[in-house]
Amino acid sequence: MATSEQNYDALVLELKEISLLAYTAAVLGWDEQTQLPRNAANYRGDQLSLLAKLVHERLVAPKLGDLLSSLKASPLPGAADSDAAVNVRQTRRVVDRARKMPSSLVQELARVAVVAQHAWVEARKNSDFAAFAPMLEQMIGLKKQQAACLGPTAHPYDALIDEYEPGETAAGVAEVFVSLRGPLVDLVGRIAQVSHKGKGALLTGDFPRAGQEAFAREASVAIGFDFDRGRMDTSTHPFCTHLGPSDTRISTRYDERHFNDAFFGVLHESGHGLYQQGLPVEHFGTPCGEYTSMGIHESQSRLWENFVGRRRSFWRHFFPKLQQRFPATKAVSEDDWYRAVNHVAPGFIRVEADEATYNLHVLLRFELETALISGDLSVSDLPGAWNEKMKAYLGLTPPDAARGVLQDIHWSSGGVGYFPTYTLGNLYAAQFFAKAQEDLGDLDSSFARGDFKPLLDWLRANIHSKGQRYGARELVRRVTGKPLSAAPLLAHLALKAKEAYGV
Amino acid sequence: MATSEQNYDALVLELKEISLLAYTAAVLGWDEQTQLPRNAANYRGDQLSLLAKLVHERLVAPKLGDLLSSLKASPLPGAADSDAAVNVRQTRRVVDRARKMPSSLVQELARVAVVAQHAWVEARKNSDFAAFAPMLEQMIGLKKQQAACLGPTAHPYDALIDEYEPGETAAGVAEVFVSLRGPLVDLVGRIAQVSHKGKGALLTGDFPRAGQEAFAREASVAIGFDFDRGRMDTSTHPFCTHLGPSDTRISTRYDERHFNDAFFGVLHESGHGLYQQGLPVEHFGTPCGEYTSMGIHESQSRLWENFVGRRRSFWRHFFPKLQQRFPATKAVSEDDWYRAVNHVAPGFIRVEADEATYNLHVLLRFELETALISGDLSVSDLPGAWNEKMKAYLGLTPPDAARGVLQDIHWSSGGVGYFPTYTLGNLYAAQFFAKAQEDLGDLDSSFARGDFKPLLDWLRANIHSKGQRYGARELVRRVTGKPLSAAPLLAHLALKAKEAYGV
Repeated sequence: MATSEQNYDALVLELKEISLLAYTAAVLGWDEQTQLPRNAANYRGDQLSLLAKLVHERLVAPKLGDLLSSLKASPLPGAADSDAAVNVRQTRRVVDRARKMPSSLVQELARVAVVAQHAWVEARKNSDFAAFAPMLEQMIGLKKQQAACLGPTAHPYDALIDEYEPGETAAGVAEVFVSLRGPLVDLVGRIAQVSHKGKGALLTGDFPRAGQEAFAREASVAIGFDFDRGRMDTSTHPFCTHLGPSDTRISTRYDERHFNDAFFGVLHESGHGLYQQGLPVEHFGTPCGEYTSMGIHESQSRLWENFVGRRRSFWRHFFPKLQQRFPATKAVSEDDWYRAVNHVAPGFIRVEADEATYNLHVLLRFELETALISGDLSVSDLPGAWNEKMKAYLGLTPPDAARGVLQDIHWSSGGVGYFPTYTLGNLYAAQFFAKAQEDLGDLDSSFARGDFKPLLDWLRANIHSKGQRYGARELVRRVTGKPLSAAPLLAHLALKAKEAYGV
Repeated sequence: MATSEQNYDALVLELKEISLLAYTAAVLGWDEQTQLPRNAANYRGDQLSLLAKLVHERLVAPKLGDLLSSLKASPLPGAADSDAAVNVRQTRRVVDRARKMPSSLVQELARVAVVAQHAWVEARKNSDFAAFAPMLEQMIGLKKQQAACLGPTAHPYDALIDEYEPGETAAGVAEVFVSLRGPLVDLVGRIAQVSHKGKGALLTGDFPRAGQEAFAREASVAIGFDFDRGRMDTSTHPFCTHLGPSDTRISTRYDERHFNDAFFGVLHESGHGLYQQGLPVEHFGTPCGEYTSMGIHESQSRLWENFVGRRRSFWRHFFPKLQQRFPATKAVSEDDWYRAVNHVAPGFIRVEADEATYNLHVLLRFELETALISGDLSVSDLPGAWNEKMKAYLGLTPPDAARGVLQDIHWSSGGVGYFPTYTLGNLYAAQFFAKAQEDLGDLDSSFARGDFKPLLDWLRANIHSKGQRYGARELVRRVTGKPLSAAPLLAHLALKAKEAYGV
């Protein structure tokens, strides 16, 4: 009979082989979003569907099940947060979820995700919601089926958000979002009363693509992204994906009239990339080497995008470099540039939103997708509901579907339950950054020198290296000594408002 | 009991699912050659190794074997070249080969191919054969093992060339190469006696990359390559690969000082691409929808590169467009340009060679690789043997390994037995083109108008649409009414020499 050690070693081996296949799907997914010829989507969908089936088969196969049973009967000695305990516990979680899902549904979700994404790209181009609606209908139907298979849960949405933010629930999200909403609406309202005509206008002008790309790449390298273990490309929807232990890829899109979109997008995706590149390589393919939740992932992207990239000391270092790349900015003062990158104003597009109003975009999506999944909202009523909420929260009515309900890729790819992780990420980021400042003292003088290593090292030690050792809420508590709270984000935004607007 | 029809349908379904996996490996391979971050090669090797194992497992599994046995016992009615007969016969061939190969060797070949290719890229960059030798040693060892598993054959090389040119042998290749060699050496010798100082110099100058790319893309579209079903990128070694029924990808490399390399490279790879895009989509994933041999594949690339792309009527259409893109060529006459693109002179680099001397590069490689596989030549003696043959056949001694023994990717990727298909392709191309002219009459006036459709339609009907219905030598005999012969290629080269050099 095999010893516990032998069983555990066999488990790790099996997990690593399964992950070879799972990351093969990641390569096909990256290629799909950045390279795929127009007419090739259907076949790619069939390929991803087959890979999803193969991975699913391995997850529910007797081999993995038997190893887990043996390790349950005779566990390895060690604490609950030892490598082995974490890998066994988290594998059991994934296997339990996989067993509840029929193979046919797994395949269908993978296949429809590719086809619906390509339908979404076309529909968004033509701002034609009706052209996309049948695909979305199909996808929402599949997600409801998935929730039913994975449940019962208090709210069917709980089964879906659990995929991105393990253990999180609709009620848990709603609770923390409510504590954020009041003070945030109040703050945004106070900013709106101050005259800030043209504050953000500096970011609109002549920013040639080549210069933007080089400048963004320089910043990405400066904060620590390793291009020998990754790359940067363009795609319709900016993203970061992980294709192997040394293959992390970020993408962005360029608008030659606007500086914000690509630059802060690259900082954001680089933040995701730094988390991936900081996961322990020796554990790659097992839970100890994987990210713990999308909310924690997002906390890393937000931290570099907003808490670092929109900080005055960051621009102390980068503003002279910006002026060299884009001569028109030579007439601008560092102070005005700092205010411009921190300009707060409601807009239509989530990915272009400032760090304050951004969370209202997320709130809207969270409310709409929980209603779609519970059945309280139909796909045909979605554009109307979207526009109503935009009016209520941001005072705006989208001029077309491309700048409204069609702006995001998530629903087309089946990512229902993903949106709240953005605001959870903002909350986690604020809490982590406050603690990092407390631990490290003066970060600004190192930022002003272009030295981001002390902060990155802190993140590596406290967050990246932990893999799935702790769930998101437990990780926050362990790292900061406090439970998740909206207070640090609100304090951060209030300080920014005071500096930039005197409110 | 299942009927023959049911067994055949099940066979097709199984083949199509296997091909989904096999073409997944093609995506990973394309990505490896064009996108992969520097440090990610090992993991990619592990992924390709696993995919090779999974494909191999499916090929040797009882499911496919039982279907083949049933179809042998009760075949479907139909001629030997009916769809069903072709799919069954060719599947049996692939399964027989797969069964002779142990899974461990399949995996090891796939894994080492990735790692050795990356070692080759670095070694070529540094012109350092010693750095590459251990990987080549390992690869040649694996290819010898492979030949032993697949044999016995008259020459161990026969088992390897059979992968690329089914049914071909070392002796068969040698026979046709010998009939080519004498007249070709004679012709090249006569050209060398004519003064043609500076004839090719027009192709060296200022050719900015963006212009080269746009011009090459224009020509590729003109001859029929469909960019909605394919794409074009850059890579160290130009290639064409097929990732799905509507996903054919070509790559090239640009040298801003030389026009030849990228432009004719793109015509060449587009020719490969046209064959792939012309295979019957409804048979995709089964032998009726796959190319029949690499020699036939090469005949399509050579036909467009040399028989069309270096023809006077081709430049009647494209020369004015060239002059618009590259102002320096405005001082050049169409006649001089035509002579320049047909300039014949020995050089170091196979992929830059003219259409006459090219075959001597192939001869050299064929002789060296048969000797490596038989054991008559060791890897350590390879650079010396290379240089000796270069001196004997082309009168040149490579100044470094990068321009000598390290110039080609093939051996690093395990492609031993591939080189002869290049000259076989030249021979097939000449024979096909002569027949197309006979059938279609005046091709030149349509070329001069930029109309390549009559020729493409002829190739579609006679070659592309046939898939693996006929082997290479049989296809040539059926299409042209004659067996493979060196005469058409020699006649073509002699005519060119007369036009360009008056010899």
